[in-house]
Amino acid sequence: MIRMASGWFYLSCLLLGSLGSMCILFTIYWMQYWRGGFAWNGSIYMFNWHPVLMVAGMVVFYGGASLVYRLPQSWVGPRLPWKLLHAALHLIAFILTVVGLVAVFTFHNHGRIANLYSLHSWLGITAVFLFACQWCLGFAVFLLPWASMWLRSLLKPIHVFFGAAILSLSIASVISGINEKLFFSLKNTTRPYNSLPSEAVFANSTGMLVVAFGLLVLYILLASSWKRPEPGILTDRQLLLQLRPGSRPFPVTYVPVTGRQPYES
Amino acid sequence: MIRMASGWFYLSCLLLGSLGSMCILFTIYWMQYWRGGFAWNGSIYMFNWHPVLMVAGMVVFYGGASLVYRLPQSWVGPRLPWKLLHAALHLIAFILTVVGLVAVFTFHNHGRIANLYSLHSWLGITAVFLFACQWCLGFAVFLLPWASMWLRSLLKPIHVFFGAAILSLSIASVISGINEKLFFSLKNTTRPYNSLPSEAVFANSTGMLVVAFGLLVLYILLASSWKRPEPGILTDRQLLLQLRPGSRPFPVTYVPVTGRQPYES
Repeated sequence: MIRMASGWFYLSCLLLGSLGSMCILFTIYWMQYWRGGFAWNGSIYMFNWHPVLMVAGMVVFYGGASLVYRLPQSWVGPRLPWKLLHAALHLIAFILTVVGLVAVFTFHNHGRIANLYSLHSWLGITAVFLFACQWCLGFAVFLLPWASMWLRSLLKPIHVFFGAAILSLSIASVISGINEKLFFSLKNTTRPYNSLPSEAVFANSTGMLVVAFGLLVLYILLASSWKRPEPGILTDRQLLLQLRPGSRPFPVTYVPVTGRQPYES
Repeated sequence: MIRMASGWFYLSCLLLGSLGSMCILFTIYWMQYWRGGFAWNGSIYMFNWHPVLMVAGMVVFYGGASLVYRLPQSWVGPRLPWKLLHAALHLIAFILTVVGLVAVFTFHNHGRIANLYSLHSWLGITAVFLFACQWCLGFAVFLLPWASMWLRSLLKPIHVFFGAAILSLSIASVISGINEKLFFSLKNTTRPYNSLPSEAVFANSTGMLVVAFGLLVLYILLASSWKRPEPGILTDRQLLLQLRPGSRPFPVTYVPVTGRQPYES
């Protein structure tokens, strides 16, 4: 039983890592093999950085950074190192995102193409704006020492909800972006998008992978058994996860949880 | 304080109702004013039912039906009438969705346009398929009397998670669909999509409204204070909501909740 719970945990981590890597690698392969590769000169090859960096930043790194507190290792000892890791990974995600935006804006400006007219761009820029606000607010309230426990516990559920909401918006932006890019690229070709050439099948599948990765992140983020236990309380599954052979039991008392679990209504 | 909590509750209901109605009305207005209105004859006017019915079915009715158990009235007395309401509203949502699919497939077949090639359609049909599975599984497990309490409590968190996940996929489908439709419709016109004509601003705003409605539904669905309290336990806010002037106190004991709340990690 202990082995099974521990096995599930590492299987989920493996699945998450594989899916995330595949999302990035598939996007790179799409741009490299069918769209001519990468450059940084204002051309369409500069645009090609945009999908890769947005998928990497707003979905994969963002998703991974969100799940830092779901590692059982983070449940004991001082919280500060984990907070710093959470903030640092999100900062990397944000930097990738900003470079991804620079790629598309530079390409547009270079080719005198309008910026921010499509619904994809409206939603995407909203997601990036909310991400910036979320990062700054998180830094100010949860990392700097001035905020009271009262303020932190008031803002924590809002921080977690907006974290999940921003990821959902990012996924919707990525889906509409891939869809839009395929209509652009496969226009006036012998095998247009509606004849489903291999590029379309590959890029559609990449989009579905991004959705699968996003849903897995949201499940782990919101499911109760992955959360840091309250002091003195462990759910059955958390106990099983912690009592792996050879692991030191954590300094908490085991109390079977009979109250509400998240997702039970 | 009691008045304030109760006020927030009704304000949220009002906001939800207004946003939901606006999503449907804006989509109808877009199709009627800019896209020539509605017909049921295989023409492009038949296609116009597709966005309206998908927004109404997969987002607005679906969202409303999901929140049945978040009404404090549903927290006491027999559960069966509320389960029937939940299933019936979702059935209406599903029927609207199926009619919306018939509209687009008939238009495609009539005009010899390929079906199910875009990422929008792949994601949309996945969402509808998951919705159908979710409804049937919910009916079989939670409405028919054969399932044990053990099975129900095992499947309930999964049912709620997939309920929220399907809504997220629907929103991503709607966004990519509006985006795609605008690229189709505003091609070869004097004022193309990238010059942001009034139709584009209006339809983009409709998409952003759908996102706002969806996030509000997800917030109410997942936030702890909106959930049916466990027998014998009420959170402070639930108590405040129930003790409105003139209301009958519910037959539960008030125990301040000190344990974990959903969204607290």
